[in-house]
Amino acid sequence: MHYKVILRILGILLMIFSFSMLPPLAISYIYNDGADFAFIAGFFITLVTGFLIWIPVYRVRQDLRTRDGFLITVLFWAVLGFFGAFPFMITEDPHLSFVDAVFESLSGLTTTGATVITGIDYLPKSILFYRQQLQWLGGMGIIVLAVAILPMLGIGGMQLYRAEIPGPVKDSKLTPRITETAKALWYIYLSLTIVCGVGYWLAGMDVFDAVSHSFSTVAIGGFSTHDASIGYFDSLTIELICVFFMVVSTVNFGLHFFAWRQRSISHYFKDPEFKFYISTLLGITLIALIVLIVTNTYEPAESLRKATFMVVSIATTSGFATADFAHWPAMLPFLLFVATFAGGCAGSTGGGMKVIRVLLILKQGYREIQRLVHPNAIIPVKLGKKPISDRVLEAVWGFFSVYMIVFVVMLVALLATGLDQVTAWSAVGATLNNLGPGLGNVSAHYGNLNEPAKWVLCFAMLLGRLEVFTLLVLFTPIFWKR
Amino acid sequence: MHYKVILRILGILLMIFSFSMLPPLAISYIYNDGADFAFIAGFFITLVTGFLIWIPVYRVRQDLRTRDGFLITVLFWAVLGFFGAFPFMITEDPHLSFVDAVFESLSGLTTTGATVITGIDYLPKSILFYRQQLQWLGGMGIIVLAVAILPMLGIGGMQLYRAEIPGPVKDSKLTPRITETAKALWYIYLSLTIVCGVGYWLAGMDVFDAVSHSFSTVAIGGFSTHDASIGYFDSLTIELICVFFMVVSTVNFGLHFFAWRQRSISHYFKDPEFKFYISTLLGITLIALIVLIVTNTYEPAESLRKATFMVVSIATTSGFATADFAHWPAMLPFLLFVATFAGGCAGSTGGGMKVIRVLLILKQGYREIQRLVHPNAIIPVKLGKKPISDRVLEAVWGFFSVYMIVFVVMLVALLATGLDQVTAWSAVGATLNNLGPGLGNVSAHYGNLNEPAKWVLCFAMLLGRLEVFTLLVLFTPIFWKR
Ligand SMILES: [K+]
Ligand SMILES: [K+]
Repeated sequence: MHYKVILRILGILLMIFSFSMLPPLAISYIYNDGADFAFIAGFFITLVTGFLIWIPVYRVRQDLRTRDGFLITVLFWAVLGFFGAFPFMITEDPHLSFVDAVFESLSGLTTTGATVITGIDYLPKSILFYRQQLQWLGGMGIIVLAVAILPMLGIGGMQLYRAEIPGPVKDSKLTPRITETAKALWYIYLSLTIVCGVGYWLAGMDVFDAVSHSFSTVAIGGFSTHDASIGYFDSLTIELICVFFMVVSTVNFGLHFFAWRQRSISHYFKDPEFKFYISTLLGITLIALIVLIVTNTYEPAESLRKATFMVVSIATTSGFATADFAHWPAMLPFLLFVATFAGGCAGSTGGGMKVIRVLLILKQGYREIQRLVHPNAIIPVKLGKKPISDRVLEAVWGFFSVYMIVFVVMLVALLATGLDQVTAWSAVGATLNNLGPGLGNVSAHYGNLNEPAKWVLCFAMLLGRLEVFTLLVLFTPIFWKR
Repeated sequence: MHYKVILRILGILLMIFSFSMLPPLAISYIYNDGADFAFIAGFFITLVTGFLIWIPVYRVRQDLRTRDGFLITVLFWAVLGFFGAFPFMITEDPHLSFVDAVFESLSGLTTTGATVITGIDYLPKSILFYRQQLQWLGGMGIIVLAVAILPMLGIGGMQLYRAEIPGPVKDSKLTPRITETAKALWYIYLSLTIVCGVGYWLAGMDVFDAVSHSFSTVAIGGFSTHDASIGYFDSLTIELICVFFMVVSTVNFGLHFFAWRQRSISHYFKDPEFKFYISTLLGITLIALIVLIVTNTYEPAESLRKATFMVVSIATTSGFATADFAHWPAMLPFLLFVATFAGGCAGSTGGGMKVIRVLLILKQGYREIQRLVHPNAIIPVKLGKKPISDRVLEAVWGFFSVYMIVFVVMLVALLATGLDQVTAWSAVGATLNNLGPGLGNVSAHYGNLNEPAKWVLCFAMLLGRLEVFTLLVLFTPIFWKR
C-alpha cells in the first residue's frame, strides 16, 4: 500500500471539499439565517485538516495500484462523510449529535436520502442547501465511481456492459484517462441538473427550491427542502419533470455519453438493460395502479398519478414522496421495496444491485432450468446478442449472494438492537440500496432509532454505495497481506 | 413423455398408498374413537382410483426417461397429498374443508409439519396416528428422492457431494439400481425410527406417543400428538433424545450408509458439510443462550435447555417446540429462521436449501473477494480437498437465486391476500423450507389464514420438498416441447 500517496490524495480531497462549505455560507448570508458560523467552522476545520495531512507528503509521487484504489475509494466517502458532518453538529438548528450528524452527512454523500431530522421546513436555508449540495456532490462522485473507478477495481456493473473480462485494466495503474472520462460525464450531469432545475422553476418552484431539488433529483438522492417532499408543491407538472429526470438519471450514463457524442437516441432502445428497466417500471406501475384502484385507495386519476410517481421514486431508489406508500394496501409497500433491490442501471446515480445484474441472474436462473430439460446442450447466457463470459457471471452471482448475506447480517444486527422486523428489514433495505425512506418506524425519518442501529445503517449506506465489495475487501486479511 | 407408463406407476402408487389407511383404521378400532369410516372410505377411494388408473395401461412396458422422472416425482407428492386429504375431510373431528385437508395432508407428506388444526390433544387417536404416519412415509420418500432420484434428474445436493458433473446418469434411464439403494436407506431409516421410538418409550412416553413421535422425529416432520408438542412431556431426557435424532436425521444418509457398511464413524468428522453443519448448530445455540440469559428470558440452566432444543428443532427444520421461540427477544426469532434457510444436509430428511449449498455459496462469495485482491490468480473452490467444478457451482448459484426469487414471488402473493409482513414472510419461509411453525399469526397454527394464502403455501411446501427445480421445470414451455 502506498500510504503516503493515499494521504496526499486524501489531503487534497479534503481541501477541495472544504470549499463546498462556501456556497451554503453565502446562502446563510443572503437569507441571514444565523447558521453562518457552522460553515465557517466547517470550512476551516476541513481545510486545515486537509492541509496538515497534505503538507508532510506533498512531494510524494508514486503510481497507484489497484489495491490503493480500494482504500482511496472507501476513504473518499468515509472521510468526507465524517467532515461533512461538522456543520450539522455546530449549527444551533439542527444541533445534531455526532452519530446523527454523520448519518445525515453520509446519507447525503451516498445519495441515500435517509434523514434523522424532522421539521425540515423550518431549518435554516443554508443547512437545507448544504444537504442538497451534499447529494449533488455525492452523485458526481458516484458517476465517476461507477463508470471509471469501480471497473478498474474489478467491481461493478459497467464491465458487465462491455462483456469483457472483469478485473483491473492491464497494467493495473490508475491512469489519467479517468480525468477525461470524468469531465465528459460531469458535463452531462451538469447539463441534466440545469435543465431539471430550469424545468422546476418554470413549473412554479422558487429559485431556491428549483436548484435544491434539481440537485437531489439527478443525484437520485431524495433529500427535499420540505417535510412533505415533492408532495409539498402539489403540482402535476413538477411531478412529471421529477419522474422524467429520475428515470433519466438512473439510466447508464454511458448511453447518455453516446447520445451526446453521436446525436442519436436509437441506441437506448437496443440496450437490453434499458429495455428491461423501462418494462419493469411500467409493469410495477401497472400493478400499483390496479391495486390502488381496486382497493379504493384513491380515485382512478389520482391512483395513476400517485402510482407513477411513487413507483418511479422508489424503484429508481430516489426516495421522493407524494404519498405515504408505506401504508399503501396489500403487497404494494413490499413490492416497491423489491424493485429497490434491483435499483437503477449500471453506470448511473441509482442505487440497489443494478438492473443488469438482476437481468443476468434471471437469465441464468432460467438457463439452469433449461439445462435440466436438455442436460447436454451448451446454452450461453446472452445480453442482446453477446454471450456473457462465465467469469462475468460468476462475479454477478458472487455479488448477489454477498449482497444477500450482508443484508441478513445487518438485519440480525438491527434486530439485536431491539427494532421490530418491519422497521429493521426495511431500514437495512433502504440504506443498503441507497433509497432513503423505509417502512414501519422509519417510513418518515430515522430520528427515533437507537445509536447502534444508526451506526449499522451508516455502514449499510457505505456498503451499498461502494457496491459492497469495495468496502468488504478491506475486512479480509488477504487485502492487507504483504 | 410416456404418459401411459406414468399412469401405470401412478395407479400402482395409489394402490400401495391406499394400504396406509389400514394402520390408522386398526388404531381407530383399538381406541374405538369413531373415526373408522374416514379410513375405510379413504382406503377404498384411493384403492379404486388407483386400480381404475392402472387397469387400462397395466401391460405397458417402456423405459422411463429423465423428463418422465420430473413428472412422476411431482405427481407422487401432489397426488398422494390429494388422496391423503380424504380422511381429514370425511371424519367428523376434524371435519376439514378441502383446502385445509389438502394443506394438512401435504404438510404431512412433505414433512413440513405446519398444521391448520387446533385442539390436537382432543383429536381421535387414529387421526393423530395418521398424521404422524404421513410424515414418516413422506420422510421415506424424501430419502429416496434426495439420494437416488433427484441426482438422476440433475437436481439436488447429492451430486455436489460426489463433486461430479451434475446431470442425469449417462444413459438417462431410471435404472433398477434405485431399488437397491432405496432398500439400504430404508433399513437405516427404519432402524433410526425404532431406536428413537424405544428411546422415547424408555424415557417415559406411552407406546402410542413414542411411536408417533419417533415417526415425526426421524422424518424431520414436527407433527406431534399434543398442542404443546414436545413441551407437553416436560422431560429433559425426551428432549435430549429428540435433539439427538433430529441432528442424526438431518445428516447425509450417505454417511450413515457408509457407517453401516464399514462399521466406522471417523468419516463423519472428515466430511466438510457435517463439520460446517455441527459448528453452525453449536454457534447459533451459543448466541441464543447468551441472548436468553442476558435478557433474563429464562434462568441460565433453563436457557441452555430451551436454546439447545429450539435451535436444533428450528435449524434442522423439524419444528418441534418446547418454547414459544416466535416471542423470544431481539433477533432470535429471525436468526433461527435464517438457519432454517440453510436447513439440513443434502441426502437427509431435512428441509431448507441444504447446508452444502450454503457452504459453497459462502466459499464462492469469499473467492470473489479474493479475486479482487489477486485478479489474475486462479482460485478453485474446494470442498475438503476436492476442487468443485464450475458446472456444479453454477447449479448452486442457480438454485440459490431461484430459491430467493421464488421466496419473494410467493411473499408478494401472500401479502396480496392481506397478510401482515411478519406473518407472510415467515409463513413462506416455514413452508418453503419445510419447517412448519412460523412467526406472527402462524406461530401456533395456520388455521386462521385465508384460502388463497393456504393454496400458495401448499405450493410452497411442494416447491421446497422437490428442491424447487423439479416442480418449476414443469411450468416452462421447453419442458413440454417434444
Ligand atoms: K436515494
Ligand atoms: K418440519
